[in-house]
Formats: sequence, C-alpha cells, structure tokens
Amino acid sequence: MSVSIGDVRSAHERIAPHIHRTPVQASQQLDEIVGCRLLFKCENLQKAGAFKSRGAVNAVFSLSETSAKNGVATHSSGNHGAALARAAQLRGINAYIVIPSDTKQVKKAAILAYGASIIECEPTLDAREVALEQAVRDTGAHFVHPYDDDLVIAGQGTAALELLAQTGGLDSLLVPVGGGGLVAGSAIAAHPMTRVYAAEPEMADDAYRSFKTGELVTSHTPRTICDGLQTTIGARNFAIMQDKVSDILLVSEQEVIDAMYLLWTRLKQVVEPSSAVTLAAVIRNQKLFAGQKVGVILTGGNVDPNDLPFT
Amino acid sequence: MSVSIGDVRSAHERIAPHIHRTPVQASQQLDEIVGCRLLFKCENLQKAGAFKSRGAVNAVFSLSETSAKNGVATHSSGNHGAALARAAQLRGINAYIVIPSDTKQVKKAAILAYGASIIECEPTLDAREVALEQAVRDTGAHFVHPYDDDLVIAGQGTAALELLAQTGGLDSLLVPVGGGGLVAGSAIAAHPMTRVYAAEPEMADDAYRSFKTGELVTSHTPRTICDGLQTTIGARNFAIMQDKVSDILLVSEQEVIDAMYLLWTRLKQVVEPSSAVTLAAVIRNQKLFAGQKVGVILTGGNVDPNDLPFT
Repeated sequence: MSVSIGDVRSAHERIAPHIHRTPVQASQQLDEIVGCRLLFKCENLQKAGAFKSRGAVNAVFSLSETSAKNGVATHSSGNHGAALARAAQLRGINAYIVIPSDTKQVKKAAILAYGASIIECEPTLDAREVALEQAVRDTGAHFVHPYDDDLVIAGQGTAALELLAQTGGLDSLLVPVGGGGLVAGSAIAAHPMTRVYAAEPEMADDAYRSFKTGELVTSHTPRTICDGLQTTIGARNFAIMQDKVSDILLVSEQEVIDAMYLLWTRLKQVVEPSSAVTLAAVIRNQKLFAGQKVGVILTGGNVDPNDLPFT
Repeated sequence: MSVSIGDVRSAHERIAPHIHRTPVQASQQLDEIVGCRLLFKCENLQKAGAFKSRGAVNAVFSLSETSAKNGVATHSSGNHGAALARAAQLRGINAYIVIPSDTKQVKKAAILAYGASIIECEPTLDAREVALEQAVRDTGAHFVHPYDDDLVIAGQGTAALELLAQTGGLDSLLVPVGGGGLVAGSAIAAHPMTRVYAAEPEMADDAYRSFKTGELVTSHTPRTICDGLQTTIGARNFAIMQDKVSDILLVSEQEVIDAMYLLWTRLKQVVEPSSAVTLAAVIRNQKLFAGQKVGVILTGGNVDPNDLPFT
C-alpha cells in the first residue's frame, strides 16, 4: 500500500495552518429518524467550501522548490479546481485549471478569485486530456490529479482523522465515492478500528460495479445530480477500497434529494447533493447501523441556491 | 429598568442544561465584501431551530410549581410557539399554542412534535386574543408572551452574553427587531461596552418609526418576507431600546434576499429571511462598521427549502 496512516498524520501537520479544523454537528431529531447516533463532519465549512482543500494543500506544500516553481495544473471545474487554485495562491505559485467550456459562471468565478489561470476546452474527456498535456508542456507546471495521487489521498484522509479525534472513535464511517480520493484517505485513517462504507448514486455506480466484480470499471456515463461524484474511480483508489472498505451502498436520486432536504432542515447546513448520499445510505440501510455511533463526512457546500432540486 | 444584566446571567445558568451553546462562524470572503470582521452567532443551530428556545426555557423554568402546574399558553405560529412547546415538554407540563387557521402544515408539525395542544383561530389579531384568553380561562395555563415579558427578554439576552464571551468582546452588535425580545435582551447584555444596532425591514418599520419619533407605534401592516419580524414592538421592549440601542437600520426586501443568498453561499448556513436583515444592514451601512469587530446574531433556520425567495 503506497499511503499509510503515518502519511495521513504527516499531511495533517503540513496542512493544519492552511485549513479549518471543521466542527462536528449532530441533530437529535435526525438520530430519532434513523435509529443511530450520527456525527457530521462539516467540510462544507472548509476553506473553499469543500474537503478538497485538504488534498490540494497537501499536494502543493509537499512539492520541492524545484517542482513547485513553475506552478501546478489540473483538470476540474469543481471543488478540486478551486481548492488547487487556493493552495497555489497560498504558496505563491501559479495554477492552471483546465475546465470544460460549459462550466457555470459561478464555478469559474470561484477559481479566478484565487488568482488561477483558466484554460477552457471542449466538454469531452479527450479534449480535457489534450488541453492539460498542452498546459503542462507550455508552462512546466506540475500536474496534481484530483484523486489518483498519494498526496491527495493522504490529505483527504485528514478529515476522518480529525473526526475520529473529535468524536472519541466511531463504529462506522460513511463517505461518498466519486474518484475515490476521500474514501481511500478515510479508509487509511479509520480502518480497521472503524468500519468504512462508501455511498454512491445508482446513476453513477462505477465504484460499486468495480467493487462487486473486482474489476475496475474505467468508463461509464453518469447521470446524477451529485456533480461531485461523476468521475470514475481511480486505480490506486480502487486498490485501497478493495482492501479496507466494508461495502458500497447505492442510493437513488430521489433518496439523495430527500436526504439533502433533511440535512438542510434539521442540521441547517447548506450542503451539495454529493454530500447527501451518505445520509441517504444510512436511511436505506437502517438495520446495518442500528444503535451505532456513525460518522458522516459532509463533503462540500458549493451549491447554487438558485438551482435546487427540491421543487 | 426591569431587566438587569444580572437577570441575563441568572437566565443563562438556568437554561444552560436545556439549550445549545451555539457556535460562532466567520467567513474571510464575507469580511472582504463588507470591510469589517463579522462574527456570526449561529442560533439557527439552536434547539428548535431558533434563539426563541432561550426565552421560552427561561420563562418556563422560572415558574413556581404552583404557577407551572396547569401548563403554559401563548399565541405564535412560529418559533416562539415551537420553543414554548419544547420548554413545557422538558418541564413535563402542558402547552397550549394558539395559531391562525392558515398556518402552514410544517409549522403545525413542529409544535405538535413537542407534545403541545394546538388551538386554531381565525387569522386576525382579535380572534387570537379571544382564543388565548379562552384557553387560559379553560385550562388555568400561564401565559408566556412572545417578547413583552421580563423573563423572555432576559432569556433572549443570553445569546449576546455567550457571543461576547466567545469572541472576547465586540465593537458593535447587530440583531433583527420584530417584537423586540432579542434586541432588548441583547442591549441589556452588551450595552454600554458594545454599541447595539437593530435591523428592520422597511416593509415592517414600526420599531424604526417608534424609535425616531419617541412614540410607540402600536399598529401597522407589515408586508415583508421576514415572517419572524412582522410583530409590533412591545412596550417594555421599546423602553429598553430607547435607553440602550444606538440606532435602527432599515433594509429593503431585495437587500434581505441578497444578504440571505450571501449567508447561504459563504457561511453555508441555512437561515431564515429574518436572520438576514442584519447582514443587509451592514452592507448598506459599510462606513458605519468599517474596520470594526462586529457581532451578528443569526436568529433562526426554520425555512422551507421548497419555498425560497431566490428564484
């Protein structure tokens, strides 16, 4: 295994000056609904609005002066793009963020606000790869993958590390799975003391199919409102998941919307649809968690109140 | 003055076992927008979703056994109704809550969930008074006014007391004004060390007109989305406000909506429109608060995500 619990601890020391130690919230009413004790790690209150700040800061601040001097680059229209832009700004280096041309203005603005350069490409996987390679060749920037990267995985694992310390230990921990950066890091931080479950939308079930068949699904066509979970799971993320994750729990789109409604009205937290798959999975699998002390990572809060799935 | 800082401190000791010591949140991005340091007291995370739990618990737990034995009653379809129902349930006594017949189902459900009896009346002030008097006569319950009550005022003041302790002191403190329970309690807790400002919607400006003319406005026709601020300011609340509040700042409906959008997207907190009048007032009066350390009480988070003012 290429990432160890020691790497997660080192990452936590490295990033601590640049991130929030986010609070843990709970709701007695929610606990009564689900029949277990839920403790929510509020990464929606993290810098740049998502846990992605952890991995991005760890990757950027781990670079040698030589590797860092030409800046960093990535492809991401979402939270990783903004988080990497912020991390680069903190270190005083350039960031080059490749985004599809149909990215919403509000997401572009978040990236630009951290002083990054935006490179637009056609909204296809091929165009993205080509644009990124071109940017790296032109600038000499260091590519920081959104999830299939040891330093990113170690950084994302620090959220679970903090949650375990803040709660005095957990029976189970639930995290959403997209590319697998958070689930891999969380599993390294929490396994085997705590059982780790990944939650995934049925409409983007590549990690589920990979986990059940043992063969990495490398292409799929996700159609989920969970915009943070549309990526395909990475190879090293999958290997860690096979080793340390107890199960992957699927949820429907309507279950995600219902869970998001509960989080907004009971916890009073603004969270993205991607953050609600975990509560949805608890609700669908109540017997599995009955009476347990269950940790849940609320991954991010970057959602546009003008564009909500409720009505 | 009938309520002293000592009463607020006593209230805090009395209610501490039954309420949350709510967290204080801040956002660097918001600070950059407004040009001062904003520290938000998250009473949207309070028990029953609003600061009203403080005053209700203080009133209910201050009653003698004799006064308490027949229960408590009030008229309120909103946060005070739910908070009083909860406080009565904690003490093991009955609560009778008079609400207009057009109250939304979600608000009724919140009151019923705390085991209270609901008494429906026609949606007029007269009908409400009649129904309340009838209920008090029938049951012998003790009437707890939503704001024009010393124990309620002392209880509401505990939010500012906590905020001052959590922040190490403030230059200014902003709170919304409706009936005036929170503004009176906050002013007693914070004045004169901290300047206290009330914020009010232009479309419900009875407190503003009372404050500016020195004569209590006792009837008005509010038409604001801030459903918690439609009440007319109470007599004792007005007297305290005249003595200890620096100014009342008016804001438009659009300014409230814009400020609520900022709170949702930057602080990631689900708050009611009534909670956004304070940030709106800071934005409209930036020079007044420039460079200051400013406390803001986010009063409540009971809002229906299916019924938002943004779109």
